[in-house]
Amino acid sequence: MERGALLYTGKAKNMYATDNPEELWAEYKDQATALNGKKKVAIAGKGTLGRQISSLLFTEINAQGMPTHFIKTLNETAMLVKKCDMIPLEAVVRNFASGSFERKFQVEHLKPLKPAVHEFYYKSDPLDDPFINDEQIIALGYADKDTLVAIHKFADQVNAYLFQRFAGIGIKLVDFKLEFGYLADGQMVLADELSPDNFRLVDAETGASLDKDVFRKGEGPLAPVYAGVLKRLQAGE
Amino acid sequence: MERGALLYTGKAKNMYATDNPEELWAEYKDQATALNGKKKVAIAGKGTLGRQISSLLFTEINAQGMPTHFIKTLNETAMLVKKCDMIPLEAVVRNFASGSFERKFQVEHLKPLKPAVHEFYYKSDPLDDPFINDEQIIALGYADKDTLVAIHKFADQVNAYLFQRFAGIGIKLVDFKLEFGYLADGQMVLADELSPDNFRLVDAETGASLDKDVFRKGEGPLAPVYAGVLKRLQAGE
Ligand SMILES: Nc1ncnc2c1ncn2[C@@H]1O[C@H](COP(=O)(O)OP(=O)(O)OP(=O)(O)O)[C@@H](O)[C@H]1O
Ligand SMILES: Nc1ncnc2c1ncn2[C@@H]1O[C@H](COP(=O)(O)OP(=O)(O)OP(=O)(O)O)[C@@H](O)[C@H]1O
Ligand SMILES: [Mg+2]
Ligand SMILES: [Mg+2]
Repeated sequence: MERGALLYTGKAKNMYATDNPEELWAEYKDQATALNGKKKVAIAGKGTLGRQISSLLFTEINAQGMPTHFIKTLNETAMLVKKCDMIPLEAVVRNFASGSFERKFQVEHLKPLKPAVHEFYYKSDPLDDPFINDEQIIALGYADKDTLVAIHKFADQVNAYLFQRFAGIGIKLVDFKLEFGYLADGQMVLADELSPDNFRLVDAETGASLDKDVFRKGEGPLAPVYAGVLKRLQAGE
Repeated sequence: MERGALLYTGKAKNMYATDNPEELWAEYKDQATALNGKKKVAIAGKGTLGRQISSLLFTEINAQGMPTHFIKTLNETAMLVKKCDMIPLEAVVRNFASGSFERKFQVEHLKPLKPAVHEFYYKSDPLDDPFINDEQIIALGYADKDTLVAIHKFADQVNAYLFQRFAGIGIKLVDFKLEFGYLADGQMVLADELSPDNFRLVDAETGASLDKDVFRKGEGPLAPVYAGVLKRLQAGE
């Protein structure tokens, strides 16, 4: 497998072509960003850790029968994925109030949300990823009703699995963001990444943040935190 | 019918008690506000016009079999309404892109939205009436699923009626905001007001704004615009 042309430079990953037009080389970067890229720092080891946690979780979710873009690990920082026609939405699931939800509605930090709350954000850098409801998505043609129902169901299944998985290693899954895409044959799969960049994780005992919030809030070095999550996931397998 | 104690001073109306605990005196004010009250001006005649247009439209919507809080006109600026336990939501229906929707998603001004887009905003001055989705509303206990379904259906019926009614007098109903409440017996009714303060109206021929946008954008005196809408509604009866 050879790395081909650089197709996309993201904040967390670079996406490259491969010799198979239906497969991409996803290269995880040693970089953390927050505030939609306004805060950006190089972090040694982060690419490897993000790739390792993502490989581990995609493998488990594939094994649960949920289709994902993940094919295999290529090296420390790269994985091979199925190329998708991405749906331009971020699908957020919240089990406990935090972040923008806590601020916007002035609710108690980590208030349990039952059933879990789903939100969509329209992926658009110029528009600053606005919060969007189902009818706006449909009217603007970003996705159709059936797709939204399928994402909702898929996200609930991912939540059911990951919530238990993290609970088993003493971590609260507070909220997370997923992205979905279509394969050439029309199948919808879970794509992008599954790392603490996209999860909000809290230690069930100490209440400490175990995710990108450590970086957002400037609470110290990020790599050891991600390494700790990886170690607990590996030990809990 | 005597006017009792002042219960609530709003931006557009004062609500007073009456001798019947299940009825309120709604007094329409000679005042226009925009930007959630940050821009505020006295406008002679506006109270009368807002009350007249509201009385006329509530009467028609009652006649269509849709339950509203409207009982009867009391005088030039006041109407008698059934007291409601208000649902803390603004229910917005959009037939064409405008205002915050147009800005947020950078879509063409007055792009037709089919089917009409529904949005909810949580009524809270300290939180600045945030845009909210159905699952957030339910998780936060602001309304339950059945209530949201009932509001959706009711708002569609109001839209079906008013869209045709305004089309019949050469006016495009671009979007509007409704509020609902519960009567003592549990029935959900359409409450608040039905005036160009809450509708976005555009002349089908000239494209001129015929609503509070004239005030928001500082395009000249508002009272003659509202008077024009009332005249066309009366002529089109
Ligand atoms: N299987 C896939 N096929 C095609 N594109 C993918 C796939 N998985 C993820 N992507 C896209 O590749 C990019 C990954 O880069 P990264 O996550 O660093 O982007 P980003 O900086 O977050 O920007 P954005 O997500 O807003 O595009 C994203 O645009 C993501 O949607
Ligand atoms: N039938 C009703 N029973 C009880 N309250 C009502 C009824 N109809 C309307 N209201 C409420 O009375 C108030 C009317 O005042 P107005 O519309 O001027 O308020 P406002 O300044 O828009 O503020 P807000 O709507 O945010 O309370 C609103 O709070 C409205 O929700
Ligand atoms: Mg990304
Ligand atoms: Mg009001």
